[in-house]
Amino acid sequence: MKIVIDAMGADQAPGVEVEGAIQAIKEFGYDLILVGDQERVEAELKKHKFRSDKLSVVHASEVIEMHEPAAISVRRKRDSSIVVGMDLLKKGKADAFISAGNTGAVVCAATLSLRLLPGIERPGIAICIPVLTGTSLIMDVGANIDPKPMHMLQNGIMADAYCKYILKKDNPTIGLLNVGEEESKGTDFIKESHTLLSESKLNFIGNIEGRDIYSGKADVVLCDGFVGNVILKVSESVVDTIVQLLKREIKVNIIATIGAALASSAFNELKKKLDYSEYGGAPLLGVDGRCIISHGSSTAKAIKNAVKFAGESIKQDVNKHIIEELESY
Amino acid sequence: MKIVIDAMGADQAPGVEVEGAIQAIKEFGYDLILVGDQERVEAELKKHKFRSDKLSVVHASEVIEMHEPAAISVRRKRDSSIVVGMDLLKKGKADAFISAGNTGAVVCAATLSLRLLPGIERPGIAICIPVLTGTSLIMDVGANIDPKPMHMLQNGIMADAYCKYILKKDNPTIGLLNVGEEESKGTDFIKESHTLLSESKLNFIGNIEGRDIYSGKADVVLCDGFVGNVILKVSESVVDTIVQLLKREIKVNIIATIGAALASSAFNELKKKLDYSEYGGAPLLGVDGRCIISHGSSTAKAIKNAVKFAGESIKQDVNKHIIEELESY
Repeated sequence: MKIVIDAMGADQAPGVEVEGAIQAIKEFGYDLILVGDQERVEAELKKHKFRSDKLSVVHASEVIEMHEPAAISVRRKRDSSIVVGMDLLKKGKADAFISAGNTGAVVCAATLSLRLLPGIERPGIAICIPVLTGTSLIMDVGANIDPKPMHMLQNGIMADAYCKYILKKDNPTIGLLNVGEEESKGTDFIKESHTLLSESKLNFIGNIEGRDIYSGKADVVLCDGFVGNVILKVSESVVDTIVQLLKREIKVNIIATIGAALASSAFNELKKKLDYSEYGGAPLLGVDGRCIISHGSSTAKAIKNAVKFAGESIKQDVNKHIIEELESY
Repeated sequence: MKIVIDAMGADQAPGVEVEGAIQAIKEFGYDLILVGDQERVEAELKKHKFRSDKLSVVHASEVIEMHEPAAISVRRKRDSSIVVGMDLLKKGKADAFISAGNTGAVVCAATLSLRLLPGIERPGIAICIPVLTGTSLIMDVGANIDPKPMHMLQNGIMADAYCKYILKKDNPTIGLLNVGEEESKGTDFIKESHTLLSESKLNFIGNIEGRDIYSGKADVVLCDGFVGNVILKVSESVVDTIVQLLKREIKVNIIATIGAALASSAFNELKKKLDYSEYGGAPLLGVDGRCIISHGSSTAKAIKNAVKFAGESIKQDVNKHIIEELESY
């Protein structure tokens, strides 16, 4: 099992990627390839005095920065870590690719290089979130910010397969995120998506609202990539804000300070549940290959967990199940 | 000062509207008109044994339910509480209208009856949210779920006036909600909105992301009504979920239980800050009249605070300032 890591992707690249890769080799024993500026990557490796025949470095002279337009930069920067890494996957020299870099560029490179699964017109990113009843899947969280209704149906089918075979949920419920529960609500795009999903074989439970996401009303929350991206970032930020506001309130009250110290174990457990880095990455579904998208602000721990997640993805082979589902339509 | 309340709007109508109106009269002394099913409203008044010449009831035989399509129901149900209430405002028999009912229907009735301010093509709902630096305004949170870029500019101008004259902020910063900070990011709709805002006289700080909302990066967060609606509902739901998860964690740990009890004053202060019912309602900006939209799940306290908010809106006369701003463009 061989996993390629884009070493230049995260905000703290290549430090976090190198450290995460070292931790992952020690913990899981996978073979890893770091793709990026060889000199910088090796300087990081030196810091950790790490050598292993399980780790190799492939040089890529260019980096696609976060601010660069996706399609143009993928076409122009043929020697970027994203394009070179994706190429290794394409050529069968690796079984999965992980990047914390420019999401649009990863999606674009994956689509161009790996190609799409038969029946899929656009890929989508599915992410697991902790909800009151366990775990739900939001799709899409940023691959396709301006989808057509047909893409929502395709995302529904892919998310359904993911839920069944990876999250082991029987007959997962699929909800369409809208501004109200009623069929009459929403934009034309949402109404058309609703019609397509209603007519499908999916266990479609209709429209759900923003408040229903974390209560776990649906196993799969379908939304366009723009809305999904906003939901994720807002959710993270609400958690941070609550913690900060609570700290302020607690500071002015000595009894509350003692109380908070005593309750800290509960806080830490909760923090762990909500901590993005525990998951590490989200699969890009719909491309013919295993591609994991990590957070730009990934820590070494997040990269390590992305490797763990990539390893599981290789074993589970979700694409086989997605293709079977698509063929049954 | 006379304020009309749609007595049939909230999920718990007309109970919460009647109780909220009674509290408001006792606390603020405004003259109130409750519009709705006379028999049901008077039965509620009887429960509270309340009589006052400051409170009158206007009968409306119909109710526009939450699930009804907005435009059609406003045209058909001419004797609904929303249409009758809006008519009282239109005819100058009241200075403000409050409804916790079908938002789309209120927006539609306001647009048809009160008409729009010169230079405004669609109204928008602006809502104040607590952020780390104080208060920010999100606009729109549900009046216009499929706006044109020009509506985003118009919302920007209205929100700017609201921030300056009501929230008393000098030169408020205006941010456009997007999936990334870079100008190249987003849908065509967002890019065109970005261009219009950049060329305006507003203090436009460019794109902001979901994570920037609660950090208070911008005084005004501009987004379409679909996204704004989702943000509000997701935020509320994250707070609720954290509280519930924390309760679960605390339950299994006796020391944490004691700690949480000691820290409860801090929790309660925070809860108050985040509590929607403390604000009561959000203004519908862009219509030629004062229209306050309240939450469907409003409590009596929320209705009381919506009346307080309506009273302040009458004194502040934000429309005068919006018209001045629009004329300067």
